[in-house]
Amino acid sequence: MLSQGMINDIEELLGKENVKTSEADRQTYAYDSAVLPSVTPAMVVFPPTTEKMGECVKKFYEAGIPMTIRGAGTNLSGGTIPDSTDNVVICTEKLNRILEINVNDLYAVVEPGVITQKFAEAVAAKGLFYPPDPGSQSVSTMGGNIAENAGGLRGLKYGVTKDYLMGIEFYDSTGALVKSGSRTVKCVTGYNLCGLMIQSEGTLGVISQAVMKLVPPPQATRALMAVFADMQDAADAVAGIIAAHILPCTLEFLDNNTIVRVDDFTHAGLPRDAGAILLIEVDGHPAQVADEAEAVEKVLKANKAVAVHVPKDAQEKAKLWEARRQALPVLARARPTTVLEDATVPRSQIPAMLKAVNEIAAKNNVQVGTFGHAGDGNLHPTFLCDIRDKDEFRRVENAVDEMFDVAIKLNGTLSGEHGIGTAKSKWLQKETSAGTIEYSRRLRNALDPKHLLNPTKMVEIS
Amino acid sequence: MLSQGMINDIEELLGKENVKTSEADRQTYAYDSAVLPSVTPAMVVFPPTTEKMGECVKKFYEAGIPMTIRGAGTNLSGGTIPDSTDNVVICTEKLNRILEINVNDLYAVVEPGVITQKFAEAVAAKGLFYPPDPGSQSVSTMGGNIAENAGGLRGLKYGVTKDYLMGIEFYDSTGALVKSGSRTVKCVTGYNLCGLMIQSEGTLGVISQAVMKLVPPPQATRALMAVFADMQDAADAVAGIIAAHILPCTLEFLDNNTIVRVDDFTHAGLPRDAGAILLIEVDGHPAQVADEAEAVEKVLKANKAVAVHVPKDAQEKAKLWEARRQALPVLARARPTTVLEDATVPRSQIPAMLKAVNEIAAKNNVQVGTFGHAGDGNLHPTFLCDIRDKDEFRRVENAVDEMFDVAIKLNGTLSGEHGIGTAKSKWLQKETSAGTIEYSRRLRNALDPKHLLNPTKMVEIS
Repeated sequence: MLSQGMINDIEELLGKENVKTSEADRQTYAYDSAVLPSVTPAMVVFPPTTEKMGECVKKFYEAGIPMTIRGAGTNLSGGTIPDSTDNVVICTEKLNRILEINVNDLYAVVEPGVITQKFAEAVAAKGLFYPPDPGSQSVSTMGGNIAENAGGLRGLKYGVTKDYLMGIEFYDSTGALVKSGSRTVKCVTGYNLCGLMIQSEGTLGVISQAVMKLVPPPQATRALMAVFADMQDAADAVAGIIAAHILPCTLEFLDNNTIVRVDDFTHAGLPRDAGAILLIEVDGHPAQVADEAEAVEKVLKANKAVAVHVPKDAQEKAKLWEARRQALPVLARARPTTVLEDATVPRSQIPAMLKAVNEIAAKNNVQVGTFGHAGDGNLHPTFLCDIRDKDEFRRVENAVDEMFDVAIKLNGTLSGEHGIGTAKSKWLQKETSAGTIEYSRRLRNALDPKHLLNPTKMVEIS
Repeated sequence: MLSQGMINDIEELLGKENVKTSEADRQTYAYDSAVLPSVTPAMVVFPPTTEKMGECVKKFYEAGIPMTIRGAGTNLSGGTIPDSTDNVVICTEKLNRILEINVNDLYAVVEPGVITQKFAEAVAAKGLFYPPDPGSQSVSTMGGNIAENAGGLRGLKYGVTKDYLMGIEFYDSTGALVKSGSRTVKCVTGYNLCGLMIQSEGTLGVISQAVMKLVPPPQATRALMAVFADMQDAADAVAGIIAAHILPCTLEFLDNNTIVRVDDFTHAGLPRDAGAILLIEVDGHPAQVADEAEAVEKVLKANKAVAVHVPKDAQEKAKLWEARRQALPVLARARPTTVLEDATVPRSQIPAMLKAVNEIAAKNNVQVGTFGHAGDGNLHPTFLCDIRDKDEFRRVENAVDEMFDVAIKLNGTLSGEHGIGTAKSKWLQKETSAGTIEYSRRLRNALDPKHLLNPTKMVEIS
């Protein structure tokens, strides 16, 4: 599909240094963070300017070449795995300029390849705060965060990426420039294409610029760690915190399986018999933080917390938080393959969901550890297996299937923050409706008539 | 277009009492709050259940009858004026049930015809808070608020309707049921159709149910009123408040024209020589409120506030706020026709925008009073005229044209919260791009292939 003439054209447009066609280079862009087979693209391009990216899209559209747009490839649902070996990968890593941080009007303008953490740091250096903090923030890009609607630890109080996208510019599949939203808090001018582009996984357009909302930073924070003998008590404590009208900025938990594995690895002296640990952080005005921390502690104790630790300084807090940070890496080390899920339920359903996850794992004879964002009901049941053991992997797949059924039955969702990609598209109709799939297909066919933008992702088009 | 057979079918489906075909009844649904000619629909229907509304949509789709969905008709851009005398108006007023208020999981589920203020009160009765408060909240409906992305006074700190829509169910133009979003804080399952439906002005589907996010209420509030000799000082004070990292829940202003007219009418003893008044309210933890109120007062004085009033109780506050509440009714009383605009700019551009509005009004020899949401940069320049005086009305239209040019030049937007409808569609491309209009048209043609859902609104389809 990809002619030498096209390669020459693109090299001329972008400069030879921005076009990779060797086997070794192409293989580097054949996979992402999902447990899915890799697919080597035909070419990888690195537009040095957004305008040149638009010209690339136009050329690929005219030649009928499918495109996968890629930031850092940290998504967990296959959204950045090429659809076929005919795909060109458009990598946004050179489009990494922060164009403006406006402290008077509380917004910033970024190119899609800006790294999330660098952005958050640049914003902090100007005295402001960009709250979304996906686990991959040290490498993930703002364009990728928008395309996946990335979440993180602060969802309950501060929301997720979609709550910060004020304006967007993108190229449609033909290479035409589309603009929506504004640098203003309020804007109802035309369709809300910011809302449409969020979590569209590279299927509806190629993001070239975004206006992100910023907020003043909290003046103070305070952290607590609580140990529970029983998971149900921890879940009741979560409900009790919300009932006390407190929205912690962080409200994380680890189950016993995760605690034991983290302790095995870190020898941190974690309570190995604990049913669950909750990690809580409140933030805001210093007096509010003091009151909320006290109220949280009361709720924890009223719900049978075996112990509540209040770290005295940043160092002690970092130590406590280490268990949470180590959860995924430690679980991932245990076995060759880590299937990290993100089934999400209304927080009051966490006990029911956790019970079901453990029962399903036992029934299918698979290993699972669960940690996650308790305040959001956003769990990360993490299945540990070896993909080369076909029988075991089939059992993991069964368990995941059954788990999604339970999540939907509990008024929850397949995916809180990892996306659909190719990994979860088969479950989409079960959560929504036949009408939803048809509506999505019609939408997509109209906006990408040649089926060139990540065509096998999200919903099948035909 | 509308046959007697169809009328009989619909009467059988909905009950005769839910179908209005008399001239007098139909005329009641011929207009909304925009200054635009009325168009009398062919029939008005009041589905008693959402399922029956879906069946209506299916029947109208099959017969090719255009539909205008209407809540209370309070929108200001013509979104609920029928496109032609062939239209059927589907009025959601009987779909007024609050299906659930979940205090553990901080959400509520509503039908589209629930009145905004009744919803906010029901939520408050359960100890929670629904912040969006559009000016029409005492009669406007939740479905209408979603279709228009209604704003209000709390946008700066709390956001607008889009920031509270977690899940949606709607019928597409064919009558198929579409579902998106969830009862969870995080959900990335499929396209973000909540985001797409927000501010789509009844053109992409017929909303049947919505899940709205709720938050804990603030524990305390404090109000201040500041008087400035010069508008520029008031604008500098607004910037100073944001620079001090304070996000007031309300930050409103009135210009001199508005102050004088309100005082003429209410004899409230307002400072008639003032260049501007700012009305400010901070909320949150009591200690935060005390600190912020003190800091705000300092900023106001540092920016040459002539006087700062801190009301001692709710009654005194209500009296101060009366000036703001009276702004629109008083301006509207002055002349037969009130053209209420909502040009919005980044808040640092407020002085430039206000200067331009007054110059443009003088140049075109038209009367204008401006008040609005200073914290959002969301101004309400209100042109006072008589639509029967064709020359004067043409001058008002010229002034509005020129004002939008300035708003766009200042990085602002045509419409902060009133919508596009038919009133502003001609300016849409100027703010966005030809590609945006084409993208929107393709989207719309695909989702409404027979052009039946409010077909002349937002962007022209062909």
